[in-house]
Amino acid sequence: MTRFAFTIEFDGAPYMGLQRQSHGPSVQQSIEEAVAAITGEDARIHAAGRTDTGVHALAMRAHVDVEKDIDAFRLMEGVNAKLRPEPIAVTHCEVVPDDWHARFSCIGRSYVYRIVNRRAPLTLDRGKAWQVAKPLDHEAMHEAARHLVGRHDFTTFRSVHCQAQSPLKTLDRLDVEREGEEIRIHAAARSFLHHQVRSMVGCLTLVGLGRWEPDEVRRALEARERQALGLNAPPDGLYFVEAKYE
Amino acid sequence: MTRFAFTIEFDGAPYMGLQRQSHGPSVQQSIEEAVAAITGEDARIHAAGRTDTGVHALAMRAHVDVEKDIDAFRLMEGVNAKLRPEPIAVTHCEVVPDDWHARFSCIGRSYVYRIVNRRAPLTLDRGKAWQVAKPLDHEAMHEAARHLVGRHDFTTFRSVHCQAQSPLKTLDRLDVEREGEEIRIHAAARSFLHHQVRSMVGCLTLVGLGRWEPDEVRRALEARERQALGLNAPPDGLYFVEAKYE
Repeated sequence: MTRFAFTIEFDGAPYMGLQRQSHGPSVQQSIEEAVAAITGEDARIHAAGRTDTGVHALAMRAHVDVEKDIDAFRLMEGVNAKLRPEPIAVTHCEVVPDDWHARFSCIGRSYVYRIVNRRAPLTLDRGKAWQVAKPLDHEAMHEAARHLVGRHDFTTFRSVHCQAQSPLKTLDRLDVEREGEEIRIHAAARSFLHHQVRSMVGCLTLVGLGRWEPDEVRRALEARERQALGLNAPPDGLYFVEAKYE
Repeated sequence: MTRFAFTIEFDGAPYMGLQRQSHGPSVQQSIEEAVAAITGEDARIHAAGRTDTGVHALAMRAHVDVEKDIDAFRLMEGVNAKLRPEPIAVTHCEVVPDDWHARFSCIGRSYVYRIVNRRAPLTLDRGKAWQVAKPLDHEAMHEAARHLVGRHDFTTFRSVHCQAQSPLKTLDRLDVEREGEEIRIHAAARSFLHHQVRSMVGCLTLVGLGRWEPDEVRRALEARERQALGLNAPPDGLYFVEAKYE
């Protein structure tokens, strides 16, 4: 048996998320079917994180165990050929030790959220960013984000469907930067709750619009209840960008 | 009568190009129908340049004459609302003098061509860049591009359907730069021949692959015949980025 680690890029729009679902297409199902077609074996992938319907990945990590004698390059090429024309690609593949686990060995996850702040509808970026028509004060958003960095009970920013045992998480980074009409929000933590990034982005956007004072984000956090959430940002702008390992 | 200048962004994939065609959808037809729906008048737009099927624009310029009493902001908002859900947007609109002409007043046009140089198929960038699997030497491409800058007879790099009176053009800029797996080719001139940018990019790519020496681009240019062309790059990677005016 050989364990292979994949780096995976995908456009999340056509999928019900990364994780296999009984009621619709998933990134996991497509990759597992492609691996099975190449190896002739049942394939099961384990990914560093889960992503929701419509959420994208630039460099998700996942592993798969293969009995067949095949090298990493040929496995990657074969899987990519089988995946066509789906918008999923394995951009890197390597052999890893048998005890390396894409999810349990992962010590850090990063996301970026893209907002296009302009009146005009999106064209080339449709489905790949959140268009916000009214002007956003990105400096106020960045200031508000300071309240969320650190170790907190993130119940306010957690989906009712979240399966994590504890709402306590340590947010290592939440930075808001603007380049022209685009605002990018960078988030990093060891792990996140379900919907946490989109919930945080939603509240920061209320601050950017002037509907919340930066300090109201702190109060929402301290309320520790979902009803205190101002707004959940749509999935279109969210990208999983990095999984870190020792 | 008021003359309005539009800045237009579009995803070229669903269109037979910018210019109105009898045999399929065009960016021009969509915009003219949207303007007509807002003004109640026949509308005719004049654009700074033509683009082929599948070619994109980040900031095409065009003008339209309107009799109705309407301001630039409301015209832009109305046209964008009518254009939905097409991937075309007016990103800026202003009143210009009656003798300002988007095409004839234009003194410079710029394009960028995006190549993604990697084995893995495209996902998020599908239709928006040219994927070249074999490694490209971007420095050799940049060196080869030096032969094309300046005033030349560009017959080799001209479509047989080109309607320009002369094949003589002055190429002001042709720079090749790499950032990670992406290669960007920047081209600027007062005007271009039909297919000129894609033809130049195609030959530079042969150099990047090592199939042509940089000097062979000069010989292809000097041959002044279409048969000397090595390769025409696909439209997916081409973006009209700027029209310049006095």
